[in-house]
Amino acid sequence: MLLITKDEGEMRMSEMGITVKKSENFSEWYTQVVLKSWLADYAPIKGCMIFREQSYAIWEKIQEFFNKEIKDRGHKNVYFPVFVPESLLKREAEHFEGFVPECAWVTIGGSSQLEERLAIRPTSETIIDAMYSKWIRSWRDLPLKLNQWCNIVRWETKATKPFLRTREFLWQEGHTAHATKEEADTEVTEILGIYKALVEDYLAIPVLVGKKTENEKFAGALYTTALEALMPDGKVLQMGTSHNLGQNFSKVFDIKFIGEDEKEHYVWQTSWGISTRLIGAVVMVHGDDRGLVLPPKIAPVQVVIIPIPYKNADKKLILKKAKKIFENLQKNDISTVLDDRSEYTPGWKFNEWELKGVPIRIEIGPKDLKKKQVILARRDTMEKLAVKDEERIADTITEMLEKIQSNLFNRAKRFLEENITTVKTYGEFKRTLKEKGGLIRACWCSSPTCEEKIKEETGATIRLVPFEREELFSNCVYCGEEGKEVVYFGRAY
Amino acid sequence: MLLITKDEGEMRMSEMGITVKKSENFSEWYTQVVLKSWLADYAPIKGCMIFREQSYAIWEKIQEFFNKEIKDRGHKNVYFPVFVPESLLKREAEHFEGFVPECAWVTIGGSSQLEERLAIRPTSETIIDAMYSKWIRSWRDLPLKLNQWCNIVRWETKATKPFLRTREFLWQEGHTAHATKEEADTEVTEILGIYKALVEDYLAIPVLVGKKTENEKFAGALYTTALEALMPDGKVLQMGTSHNLGQNFSKVFDIKFIGEDEKEHYVWQTSWGISTRLIGAVVMVHGDDRGLVLPPKIAPVQVVIIPIPYKNADKKLILKKAKKIFENLQKNDISTVLDDRSEYTPGWKFNEWELKGVPIRIEIGPKDLKKKQVILARRDTMEKLAVKDEERIADTITEMLEKIQSNLFNRAKRFLEENITTVKTYGEFKRTLKEKGGLIRACWCSSPTCEEKIKEETGATIRLVPFEREELFSNCVYCGEEGKEVVYFGRAY
Repeated sequence: MLLITKDEGEMRMSEMGITVKKSENFSEWYTQVVLKSWLADYAPIKGCMIFREQSYAIWEKIQEFFNKEIKDRGHKNVYFPVFVPESLLKREAEHFEGFVPECAWVTIGGSSQLEERLAIRPTSETIIDAMYSKWIRSWRDLPLKLNQWCNIVRWETKATKPFLRTREFLWQEGHTAHATKEEADTEVTEILGIYKALVEDYLAIPVLVGKKTENEKFAGALYTTALEALMPDGKVLQMGTSHNLGQNFSKVFDIKFIGEDEKEHYVWQTSWGISTRLIGAVVMVHGDDRGLVLPPKIAPVQVVIIPIPYKNADKKLILKKAKKIFENLQKNDISTVLDDRSEYTPGWKFNEWELKGVPIRIEIGPKDLKKKQVILARRDTMEKLAVKDEERIADTITEMLEKIQSNLFNRAKRFLEENITTVKTYGEFKRTLKEKGGLIRACWCSSPTCEEKIKEETGATIRLVPFEREELFSNCVYCGEEGKEVVYFGRAY
Repeated sequence: MLLITKDEGEMRMSEMGITVKKSENFSEWYTQVVLKSWLADYAPIKGCMIFREQSYAIWEKIQEFFNKEIKDRGHKNVYFPVFVPESLLKREAEHFEGFVPECAWVTIGGSSQLEERLAIRPTSETIIDAMYSKWIRSWRDLPLKLNQWCNIVRWETKATKPFLRTREFLWQEGHTAHATKEEADTEVTEILGIYKALVEDYLAIPVLVGKKTENEKFAGALYTTALEALMPDGKVLQMGTSHNLGQNFSKVFDIKFIGEDEKEHYVWQTSWGISTRLIGAVVMVHGDDRGLVLPPKIAPVQVVIIPIPYKNADKKLILKKAKKIFENLQKNDISTVLDDRSEYTPGWKFNEWELKGVPIRIEIGPKDLKKKQVILARRDTMEKLAVKDEERIADTITEMLEKIQSNLFNRAKRFLEENITTVKTYGEFKRTLKEKGGLIRACWCSSPTCEEKIKEETGATIRLVPFEREELFSNCVYCGEEGKEVVYFGRAY
């Protein structure tokens, strides 16, 4: 095998490493981290991306968590067609208007022009509802709780960015039908709770939850609830939505059931989704100037062991020790890689695994062998720790992984809290938005006109109306009329 | 709650049950089983289907098995775009010709006509290779072993059939790049081995494995290997393929690496896939006049417990016993449903779960309570067995599940063996095909002309050339010239 020489190594590493600072050029930093850590690459199709092994493995972790939660609650996974005929999409007018500007259309099949063009699904309410109207007859068929994991296409015309805005992305969409509004309300809330647990406990990203305003709700919904997270550049990212669709779709698609009262009723429906955009949030919130920093619970590799052979004599012993630790950790369900590639130097490997965001690195060199220790390096703080007791290594690592997980969350939580600004006047509002960004807490008169004016003039939208009404502290931040609700504004991705 | 009355129950059950015999009208029987067991439904788009909860759960079992196997071997899951630009698809001429007649084309994005039309992927070699040419530089980057689970579109013009031929289906496609032909050969063989293990040990369907002829190989491949299974109607179903692509694509897409010899080489590639068509095979091979019969290893529900309350007095005790058994089985990782719905009669439930193919039913009635026993009913043989020892129930069930699994395989294996017919003359060939179908073992002169003539005249193709050369026993079954190979013919789905 050839060992990469120091010169060649440095040359390739500088090509490989992140060349801008997160604090100086956030957008370029983001792109570099995404590309260089093997999360993603640009596809040879405008506006599309490739989910490389690192991001797909994170997506699988998200799937695993979410599937368990919903299956325990009786939801079933299914798969509906990628095609939605235009006539079906058109049935609910508000919904159609919302989605038609961003549909990709299939017009040719084989060598024939199609009679009716088919949209590549931008979401699946209409095609699923066409089936619900067939499947649901009686109260015995309710609730019907289906979910699918699939690709979604929305023909973005704005500049695209991997994970955050691309013409194709992956998501999960849940669609349920219930006998009463109350059951649908409960479903909406329960799912939002699962999303919150996923984002906070797994992705280590704190969120605010609440309702969307009429202007911001899902096209065709009764109401929309959402999770919103703050990114380091002061912009807000919607992390997931859970909608009560009311009976809007069931009336359009004629989804009726005979109740226990032997009368016909329309069902109440919900839909909800999270997407691969969550991975973009992880990059932005936790990453640093060395690259990705992954929360242990979603890291495809949690620990990398790097043997540091110095003299030939030690090589075998070092490798033997590395293997022993590797097996011990694997046995304890800690996802571990032993990087014993002989064609790369230890320094090269350090950089590569830091770039890829692996939470803990274990170093074993000749000195460590002599001192009967190993070195643990934390990715989040870059601290190093010498550990003597090899027998307890799995426990030590487990504890450290937990510490990293909570440190990442707490750090992000502090940032979020420091960047929620309460304002009483429009002057303060605009100044805060300009100087600091973040979330702006303000009183609002509930008029869509004020909401629209603010959006026009500042680019900020109402991200959330909190579930628990907060105490009013001023008049409407825009018109000065009586305030009716405390809401959170922000500029969104 | 309302109990479904006997009349209503019978009425709904006859609508729900299978109304034709497998032996009398195989095609109609298949459709009924697929629709009525909640495996699938027709979508409101021509030629498309919906994967309902039962089939998707089986697909998840297949994914779980296969993911573990390939990840253990170092493959990584990824996701490439659903769109393939026409120019990219065109680069490999043979490949393009093979796929272009069945592409669906996106020509409009949002409100604009696209400059170049985009195919919905019929397979992903070209788009993946466009990236491999960027990602692979050095021998250190090899082997590169990626896999994706995704939807595939092929614009079928023949009559469609759920799982077997639809315009959209789900599959997995693996794409690997290697330094040498030998490594690529090994990869092709290893994957075929995993497929065989999946199909035989999990789906309980015996297969023949071998190579495809030049006429039947994948468009653009060096050679194709495949698994073929025999269906009860005497037709043959291809269950999976594993291709050595040679350097055909790497030369077209310029995928080169600097070897340890410091010279440039083209990589050797493989691709391989299995699809949701496997679920269709399970239906055909194992199903019976009552509906689906699922091999325990892929059954979403392995055991259903049905309490049979007779007098009110026993109701509570019966339910208590049912719950105890339910918890015991769940604890032992046996996927179990306790069907305690009070709105359906036990008879209704028996029919429903038999239709859905659940391997074992546990009945608990008043008599069983008195005799301190439960009744186990096997779905494959419809045998009933009274079991006394409640404590050992998990072991008893586990053993019975294993028996069912192997019984289903052995039954199918016998059928396969009985339906391989060795013939020496073209007369025998045609008679066998007409009267019996199945696989026909014959000698062939290796000329594509004979192969094509046989296909034209009988509809039968060479399904496989066995890996291990079998001893010649006649001249070519068509032209009478010298036989060169023993091959297996059949009419395929």
